[in-house]
Amino acid sequence: MALIVQKYGGTSVGTTERIEQVARRVAAARARGDQVCVTVSAMSGETNRLVDLGKSIDANADRRELDVLLSTGEQVTIALLSIALHKLGCPARSFTGSQAGIRTDTAHSKARILEIDPARLHAQLNAGKVAVVAGFQGIDIDGNITTLGRGGSDTTAVALAAALKADECQIYTDVDGVYTTDPRVEPNARRLERITFEEMLEMASLGSKVLQIRSVEMAGKYNVPLRVLSSFEEGPGTLITYEEDGMEQPLISGIAFNRDEAQLTMAGVPDRPGIAYAVLGPIADANIEVDMIVQNVGDDATTDLTFTVHRNDYERALEIVKRIGTQVGASDVTGNSSIAKLSLVGVGMRSHAGIASRMFEALAGVGINIRMISTSEIKISVVVDDKFLELGVRTLHEAFDLAAKA
Amino acid sequence: MALIVQKYGGTSVGTTERIEQVARRVAAARARGDQVCVTVSAMSGETNRLVDLGKSIDANADRRELDVLLSTGEQVTIALLSIALHKLGCPARSFTGSQAGIRTDTAHSKARILEIDPARLHAQLNAGKVAVVAGFQGIDIDGNITTLGRGGSDTTAVALAAALKADECQIYTDVDGVYTTDPRVEPNARRLERITFEEMLEMASLGSKVLQIRSVEMAGKYNVPLRVLSSFEEGPGTLITYEEDGMEQPLISGIAFNRDEAQLTMAGVPDRPGIAYAVLGPIADANIEVDMIVQNVGDDATTDLTFTVHRNDYERALEIVKRIGTQVGASDVTGNSSIAKLSLVGVGMRSHAGIASRMFEALAGVGINIRMISTSEIKISVVVDDKFLELGVRTLHEAFDLAAKA
Repeated sequence: MALIVQKYGGTSVGTTERIEQVARRVAAARARGDQVCVTVSAMSGETNRLVDLGKSIDANADRRELDVLLSTGEQVTIALLSIALHKLGCPARSFTGSQAGIRTDTAHSKARILEIDPARLHAQLNAGKVAVVAGFQGIDIDGNITTLGRGGSDTTAVALAAALKADECQIYTDVDGVYTTDPRVEPNARRLERITFEEMLEMASLGSKVLQIRSVEMAGKYNVPLRVLSSFEEGPGTLITYEEDGMEQPLISGIAFNRDEAQLTMAGVPDRPGIAYAVLGPIADANIEVDMIVQNVGDDATTDLTFTVHRNDYERALEIVKRIGTQVGASDVTGNSSIAKLSLVGVGMRSHAGIASRMFEALAGVGINIRMISTSEIKISVVVDDKFLELGVRTLHEAFDLAAKA
Repeated sequence: MALIVQKYGGTSVGTTERIEQVARRVAAARARGDQVCVTVSAMSGETNRLVDLGKSIDANADRRELDVLLSTGEQVTIALLSIALHKLGCPARSFTGSQAGIRTDTAHSKARILEIDPARLHAQLNAGKVAVVAGFQGIDIDGNITTLGRGGSDTTAVALAAALKADECQIYTDVDGVYTTDPRVEPNARRLERITFEEMLEMASLGSKVLQIRSVEMAGKYNVPLRVLSSFEEGPGTLITYEEDGMEQPLISGIAFNRDEAQLTMAGVPDRPGIAYAVLGPIADANIEVDMIVQNVGDDATTDLTFTVHRNDYERALEIVKRIGTQVGASDVTGNSSIAKLSLVGVGMRSHAGIASRMFEALAGVGINIRMISTSEIKISVVVDDKFLELGVRTLHEAFDLAAKA
């Protein structure tokens, strides 16, 4: 008998028919003899409807009260799912965040879970009943209702799994797992049987929107095996765990990409200590986040500094860099918002040389010019013109043989 | 400085515009220096929407979970009203039933309030803030969410007023007070400045739907002055209190009426002990509620027994009475579902003779035949053919001079 935490997102519970479908899955898991704790999001569209109600009164609505408002969305879903489970003869009981003992800090609308008292849930599970817990919400030390912010239901699921010492945390979503890359770009993309937490974090942060980063971090921290599955089709999904000793790791797990960035370059800057700070300090002061930073040695006493920012911040960043460029005597300031980032991700590359050169060779072979390179232990990212994004993804997918069954 | 509990029903908070209007009233009361605790219903239509959602999954939806579902209706309103108050610069904080410490029994969907811990609310009020409490809900001893059943928001208001030792409990509704009779039947009907709890109970139980009977009973029990006012117009409304010594009581406060009943008569029944039980026992066993019961001495050794039931139960009751009639040897069993009940209500009639005769004289004067009579200390009810209802109400309203200013 295993203890399983299942999480169903907004589209999975978007109508009462879908909620009944979810109930059948949950009841089937219990019928197999597992203890099942389910956490759910608000029905799709409901959170937006509630936000609109609140904002129609006050665009700067009080955040404590917005949380009281939004938390009703999940409360409706837990009640409906429990009703559907009862109808199937599957004993179940709903728990609001407060009733489930989900303690958070006091940061309304973006609270973090501090601890979950698992006693009431364990009592429920040990009595053979399904526990249905509202995702995305908790209470602070004064009993105020808090919400974890959008996507917080994934975090709730992982935190519940950690507190209950669950054997697996299953995230049901509208895709049937994690893929080697986006199937809309590369039709040969293949579902991964498993992937490590570190790889998943790199994939997630690079724009694969399957899971919230916070939930993956938390799953890694508490060593909770995470599984991503489809709400609508049967299938094993993708298991996210720690790298196992002796497990044959594929070189590369997947290819992430991202075209939300823009590149800024300050060329011919006098090469002296503090120059990077002189440029990036004012960028940080303007609350612009910087992703990649590359500094090349130029000729003689000058250097070139290039970095990327989110495309929404491009205009503001360019203005700042032009101003600084004049101050520090840069020979040229240029920018480009038509770029894309391609990244190879894989824990296997730690122990294998030659991945980078094989990557660059493959891209050169189809005439793609690399504008920037940045590497980490399990990732190599390159920036290219964004018109090359699809070609680059497909080229790398083939070069690293990702379509083949691992 | 007074402590006021205000209650706004579903139509008063039916849109965000109306919620903002309520917020202006609440803020004005606070600006006058009063401490204000507000309790609200779900936005009109919302409770039905939620019930429909639940019933669409299971017509016999689990009652615990229905309560979890329905309680979100008021939770949305408290959040929206608090947001609207903040926007007006009026400090406010919302409380769910659980957060307000409203303890009930465990009877889901028709729970009764056991106690309210006023500490958190007092702390809020003493800090100069408005407390906005979800009506209609509470928690039982195990922390389960309960609802008080339809109309329970009035009860919440009175219970809050009792627990907070409020100076007045104001029920805002879509009428501007309690009237001498229904203005749709008698255009000269007049708003009462005040009425006693007992009179209000008689009026309410006879079909004047301004207030829930339970809330009036509770207000009387805890001696909480109740005031009924309009949400939409300014005005003093009607104050419901105990009869004050030395206060000049009008003879009659109002005329209630009701056409939901039907009459059954068993004639020529052998007049022996136990005959009333022989007839009414099976009626009670069939879960049919009986209102008026009249037994006349007939000729010699027989008697006539007449009683009224709700019109929905008429067919079932008639069948039972026919069966019993045969068994006990009644000479005739008849029924009539085209009747109406008219009642004069007034604490003043306790100390004044002659009210009944004046009533019967007035009805006879316009040719209305009285089919049944029943009296209590502060009420005289008659049953007439239902075609005479409007004429009877107007006749009595004039005969007792109710249109004149008291």
